[in-house]
Amino acid sequence: MSEIAEATYDCSIAKTLEVVGERWTFLILREAFLGVRRFDRIQSDLGIARNILSDRLGKLVDKGILERRQYQDRPARYEYRLTEKGIDLYPVVVTMMSWGDKHLAPSGPPVTLTHNACGEHTHPVLTCDCCGEAIHARNVTPHLGPGLVKSAA
Amino acid sequence: MSEIAEATYDCSIAKTLEVVGERWTFLILREAFLGVRRFDRIQSDLGIARNILSDRLGKLVDKGILERRQYQDRPARYEYRLTEKGIDLYPVVVTMMSWGDKHLAPSGPPVTLTHNACGEHTHPVLTCDCCGEAIHARNVTPHLGPGLVKSAA
Repeated sequence: MSEIAEATYDCSIAKTLEVVGERWTFLILREAFLGVRRFDRIQSDLGIARNILSDRLGKLVDKGILERRQYQDRPARYEYRLTEKGIDLYPVVVTMMSWGDKHLAPSGPPVTLTHNACGEHTHPVLTCDCCGEAIHARNVTPHLGPGLVKSAA
Repeated sequence: MSEIAEATYDCSIAKTLEVVGERWTFLILREAFLGVRRFDRIQSDLGIARNILSDRLGKLVDKGILERRQYQDRPARYEYRLTEKGIDLYPVVVTMMSWGDKHLAPSGPPVTLTHNACGEHTHPVLTCDCCGEAIHARNVTPHLGPGLVKSAA
């Protein structure tokens, strides 16, 4: 365990936080997953200053998480859509929502999710891709991976 | 969709971000999940200023995510352990790690996970608690939940 902790400066959690670990950035992503793509709408939903929104959207485009697409000619207007890399962040958004629903929403969840495939109201859970059983903090063991070995070498 | 986006100021993602949406805070949680519980060790792992670490640990204790326990008498020394509420954040940590492994780790993942129950190297996936199938951004539909209805009333 200690060798892992010593080397975590290079870990994927820290790197992910460098990209999306800022409150406004994450709330912009939440808007994107709700289908909100236009500057003015995001701005009014979040009550964010226009210069900050512009900065955060630019960074998300630079990182390949959103792409800027023109949707109107005169005047030119743009919308921001999630790329595949951005869509891959959905599990982070959903697990944050689940934790907030459980611990910070005494009146019940503000938003619920239906799984289209089965039609049921769903509470997403983290499971093992090998055996399908639940993954918890106490039933997994971390190991040094190839990325760490190469970075140390 | 629009009614949900309009009301998201009160959403569980925003509330969760208020508690853990700060880079140092999240890295302290990562340390906790790796079993690193003592101030000096967390401080040296992260290279964080002592006053900032002290502030962030205090906030995590106040929020009920870590608890401070004395482990030595003279001099009195304390360690910080995850509460059940803190342990419930594990899926957020793991999904961030998975995203970073996929998109920001060209040499491969720095840390890998073994699922103790099946003994296999695991890539945790988000699945529906009703049917067991995978949950993606494109196969769920959000709805207004009870918490939102009450907060609007």
